[in-house]
Amino acid sequence: MAALDFLFKPISVAVIGASRHAGKVGYDVLKNIVSSNFQGKIYPINPLADEILGYRAYKSILDVNDSIDLAVVTVPAELVPQVAEECGQKKVKGMVIITAGFKESGHKGAELENAIAEKAKKYNFRVLGPNCLGFIDTFTPINASFTSKFPLKGNIGFASQSGAILSGILDWSVEEGVGFSKFISLGNKSDLDESDTIEALVNDSNTKVILLYLEGVEDGLRFFEIAKKVSSTKPIVVLKSGVSSAGARAASSHTGALAGSDKAYSTAFKQIGVLRARNIEELFGYGITFSLQNIPKTNSVAIITNAGGPSIIATDMCEEEGLPLAGFEAETIEKLRTNLPKAASIYNPVDILGDALEDRYKFALNTVLSDSNVGCVLVILTPQAMTKPKETAQSIIEISKGYKNKPIVASFMGGESVREASKNLLRHGIPCFGFPERGVKSLAGLVKFASLTKAELDEEVSKFDVDKDKVNEIFTNVYNDSRVVLLGHEAAAVTMAYGIMTPKVELAKSAEEAVKIAKKIGYPVVMKVSSPQILHKTDIGGVIMNLETPEEVSNAYYTISSNVFRHFPQAQIYGISVQQMVPQGRELIIGMTRDLTWGPMIAVGLGGIYVNLLEDVSFRISPFSRKQAFEMLSETKAYKLLKGMRGEKPSDIDSIVDVILRVSQLSQDFKIIDELDINPLFAYDEGCLALDVKITLEKK
Amino acid sequence: MAALDFLFKPISVAVIGASRHAGKVGYDVLKNIVSSNFQGKIYPINPLADEILGYRAYKSILDVNDSIDLAVVTVPAELVPQVAEECGQKKVKGMVIITAGFKESGHKGAELENAIAEKAKKYNFRVLGPNCLGFIDTFTPINASFTSKFPLKGNIGFASQSGAILSGILDWSVEEGVGFSKFISLGNKSDLDESDTIEALVNDSNTKVILLYLEGVEDGLRFFEIAKKVSSTKPIVVLKSGVSSAGARAASSHTGALAGSDKAYSTAFKQIGVLRARNIEELFGYGITFSLQNIPKTNSVAIITNAGGPSIIATDMCEEEGLPLAGFEAETIEKLRTNLPKAASIYNPVDILGDALEDRYKFALNTVLSDSNVGCVLVILTPQAMTKPKETAQSIIEISKGYKNKPIVASFMGGESVREASKNLLRHGIPCFGFPERGVKSLAGLVKFASLTKAELDEEVSKFDVDKDKVNEIFTNVYNDSRVVLLGHEAAAVTMAYGIMTPKVELAKSAEEAVKIAKKIGYPVVMKVSSPQILHKTDIGGVIMNLETPEEVSNAYYTISSNVFRHFPQAQIYGISVQQMVPQGRELIIGMTRDLTWGPMIAVGLGGIYVNLLEDVSFRISPFSRKQAFEMLSETKAYKLLKGMRGEKPSDIDSIVDVILRVSQLSQDFKIIDELDINPLFAYDEGCLALDVKITLEKK
Repeated sequence: MAALDFLFKPISVAVIGASRHAGKVGYDVLKNIVSSNFQGKIYPINPLADEILGYRAYKSILDVNDSIDLAVVTVPAELVPQVAEECGQKKVKGMVIITAGFKESGHKGAELENAIAEKAKKYNFRVLGPNCLGFIDTFTPINASFTSKFPLKGNIGFASQSGAILSGILDWSVEEGVGFSKFISLGNKSDLDESDTIEALVNDSNTKVILLYLEGVEDGLRFFEIAKKVSSTKPIVVLKSGVSSAGARAASSHTGALAGSDKAYSTAFKQIGVLRARNIEELFGYGITFSLQNIPKTNSVAIITNAGGPSIIATDMCEEEGLPLAGFEAETIEKLRTNLPKAASIYNPVDILGDALEDRYKFALNTVLSDSNVGCVLVILTPQAMTKPKETAQSIIEISKGYKNKPIVASFMGGESVREASKNLLRHGIPCFGFPERGVKSLAGLVKFASLTKAELDEEVSKFDVDKDKVNEIFTNVYNDSRVVLLGHEAAAVTMAYGIMTPKVELAKSAEEAVKIAKKIGYPVVMKVSSPQILHKTDIGGVIMNLETPEEVSNAYYTISSNVFRHFPQAQIYGISVQQMVPQGRELIIGMTRDLTWGPMIAVGLGGIYVNLLEDVSFRISPFSRKQAFEMLSETKAYKLLKGMRGEKPSDIDSIVDVILRVSQLSQDFKIIDELDINPLFAYDEGCLALDVKITLEKK
Repeated sequence: MAALDFLFKPISVAVIGASRHAGKVGYDVLKNIVSSNFQGKIYPINPLADEILGYRAYKSILDVNDSIDLAVVTVPAELVPQVAEECGQKKVKGMVIITAGFKESGHKGAELENAIAEKAKKYNFRVLGPNCLGFIDTFTPINASFTSKFPLKGNIGFASQSGAILSGILDWSVEEGVGFSKFISLGNKSDLDESDTIEALVNDSNTKVILLYLEGVEDGLRFFEIAKKVSSTKPIVVLKSGVSSAGARAASSHTGALAGSDKAYSTAFKQIGVLRARNIEELFGYGITFSLQNIPKTNSVAIITNAGGPSIIATDMCEEEGLPLAGFEAETIEKLRTNLPKAASIYNPVDILGDALEDRYKFALNTVLSDSNVGCVLVILTPQAMTKPKETAQSIIEISKGYKNKPIVASFMGGESVREASKNLLRHGIPCFGFPERGVKSLAGLVKFASLTKAELDEEVSKFDVDKDKVNEIFTNVYNDSRVVLLGHEAAAVTMAYGIMTPKVELAKSAEEAVKIAKKIGYPVVMKVSSPQILHKTDIGGVIMNLETPEEVSNAYYTISSNVFRHFPQAQIYGISVQQMVPQGRELIIGMTRDLTWGPMIAVGLGGIYVNLLEDVSFRISPFSRKQAFEMLSETKAYKLLKGMRGEKPSDIDSIVDVILRVSQLSQDFKIIDELDINPLFAYDEGCLALDVKITLEKK
């Protein structure tokens, strides 16, 4: 039995707040359950009625002399906690709370919502909502919602955080002929959320694709784990809104500034194989295609068309979506050449000309489908003088039956002349779009999913031997000092403890000590003031480079001290750091910013002082495998540099991947690290060095 | 009288090849002219018929005893030249040649097409086609095409290089309720092309927006000049396909490699104020909106919605499209607060809640429209239990009449429940889209156009005093040497002649000469081998830097010579250049690549050896004003660097703009320059220097 079957396939349902008056939600819900042809038992609960819609009504759910799986609740918010108590006593397995006026309406509503959560915990039942439309299952069938329509049967499972989008799409889908397995309105997600939805739909054989409209993810870690497993077998497509509000967020690190929290969503979705739709139409374009067609074995597309213009547009869109046009086998070309009119284009796109009737479409489609280079096909039809849309559609439908693993998508341009043909295609499992661009996008979705699922998602995460105690000690000292930002030498010590090499550095408290340290480290050295108040050290003469003798070091100590005193007489000076001078390497940034939803997000890219200008950064949510660390590096422009452009020697890629993984491990081991930047990391032919490390801890 | 009135408003039309048999093109065209309710005279020409569709038929156009404005031709291709001769004798003003089998079908067809062009020239008539559908004017009215439908009357003028797209859109538009002023099928564009179309439509008061589907532009210079003028008064929106095929092109310069020929189209369109649509739906989304609504005075949008989800999605799309949300005046907020339910959101987007009826929409819409911060409005409706789409639509229509300069666009989500309301909105001039993203895109189109037209298009182009003779002399020498690629010192001399400073450099033919030159230039110097065969000089020891004494210069001469001889014994050595060493500046690239359609395209951006990695380049088609040169520079990331980031001194922006303009002038003066790269250009606090200049001439 699949998760949440008590919800989607209940044996008995009570409607608490069932009403006798049309137009009331309590009436609409009961009527929908009844008229959806639900085969289970139905119990209206209403203290003032004896009978509603032909069903005996009860004053309380406790009065029903039968076990109840599911309670659908429409009574006012203030009454719901008491109803929940009764539901608990009645041992219901689930409540669908349609009523609004909870968390979304302010403090008082949030208290009511908490009260319900307590009952759910106490009595061990699950809650959908509150503040939702309810749900629909077209196979059970049951419509436990107050929508005005019942969807067509199909294989799309759709859960939405917005009731309005759900009802808008339902209305649209009936007219368009798009079918659904389940509609789930998530509402306030007080208990059941997107992760539960995915868990419930993965084993539902009626659902071929899971669509989600989300404004946020409740539990990133859980979603990550569940979706990762599911997406390797069943496509998940998400429209995540609220991108604009997430754009700006306070960040003290480069990595944080480059990320923004929407970036975390994109990164997480990509990493776990969730397709992200860019708009509502794309969400349902993918939904239709995934629910009707299978995933292609190879990713190249063949285009068949009866006109040049639309196929040029489709070709452009293939390029934009990264969908390659198939190169035909010699045999295919020969067959097309022999059998098509001379003016036809026999290469891909195959233009079978404006006078093509269904037989020519049939021949061309059969021919390209039998070519082993072809993974999927887009059939374009424009209404011309002799065109026969209906007959052509019928041919496509028949041929498609023989090629279940080569998806076919159609684009019939036009209005009335192609309407019936388009609907017939859709009814028989061939997605048909009015514009060729949408057809290409849909096929691209299938191909993207195929490539996503190829990634091995359960690779092992490396674990390095590290010195956690040392890091603990440093962090404790920083907190004891009432700081959250580490000083340079502290941050360097943290990364060193995690096996990330830095130039040798020590903090001197006097000129004599500086000379001793310089001797130990080896000349030349660079000296920098160490103070939590001074951020731009260079600007105030707080840095002196390339010191080659004890005299120079000693002088530098006094010069820096006096420069700092002149500019920042009030600054707290911890000393002056003496650091090994190292040769210039290729400059990278490796960083971490902790996302509220997804946890540590690791970045790598071109580093240096222009990092925010160049914006060449690739992200991953931690933890991840060595293979993924390499992959994220190889997505950057920096990678081309590292491989050695224009005859230069390549950098030590392995050691960079190591640093990425060590930063990831550090972020996992110490949840109190809010942000971390290594910028620049100097990459050399052999090894690499973290030149500057910034670490910020969370406020205590 | 507007251009091409003889085409769109003929007094008399002959259909040459008119047929008595339904299904034949010659019949369909005649029937379409007749049934479009054309008020002029109609003359079927058919040697075998006496009468067709009730009109007396003639054996030849020469037999008609009346003057003929327009001949629509459907006879086979081989007969068309003779028909053209007769049309010429008959003094027709225009021919519409529907027949196919010309240039598009190969050599023989091209000859026929040329023969027609000769007749047109001889007799001074214009030709639409061949290989086209014909045209339709809904106001004349006349349907001189073989389409199966007649479009609704409206204010979109649409010309298409693809007949199939035209017929597909026509079919679609009738069902959607979208109206057109003219449909023009351009076919092979043997004479009339997109530029003529624009010229014809600019003064056509029935056309509010010009839409073009193009696979190429015939005459870039002419299109540029005409569209520039038109676009300041009437919107032009173009869907240009064939992007993918244009992607790869052979280029020997960085600039050329960065450009690609599709980039030239985008650059030209942007520069002349033409909006580029990214797909068919966007083209007609813009078309509908421009044809129905006016351009807003300010660019901020107010959103009114009855549900949260769709308005969050719309807000995301506003961000993506660069459309700012209006901040309301205090008075507006107060009014909304006082009159809307407590749970409503009174800030932008204004959420008037799921139970909003038409009166609440009416109030909210009136209130935000009267706010002077609001430039345009998106009204979102999702079908909920109490929603009244029809009544709400009616309210919007009424209110819109009072705000002609504040465009209103609606998004009514759903199917049947909103269909009638949506159609009614469209009928009354309010574009209505099924998904909110499309509504936002449409408003963004209006705003983009408003910002395009703000650019002053007729600014003066600077002309510098330059030494053209010197450049002519250098180019002559290069050609005489059977080369097209200039040597370093030659290229430097060319730019110097155009007032672009380079480090001092001269070519030495002996060690002694090198020492003399070094003395003249001043130490230190850098020496480089000069040979057309050696491209990567550094790799073979062909460059020695930082030479400070005569001995070092002399030794360097011998070292370079022997290095070169060892690696390239066969290379042709012109000498060794001695060049002034200059301090490091900020590295830019300024370049030119000559586009086949648009002419010289100038580039500026981040330079150096990683220019193709960073891809930070902005383009303009030459010539352009100083203001535009500055604008193109300010579009780059390089500009942020030049202004001085992180406390650094700014670079001399004026001198960089100067170099851009001088390169532009050089490209105008010498059409034989195919490609030019200055990379790097060192920018300093004062002035800048072209460190390395590459110039390639066209092959003779």
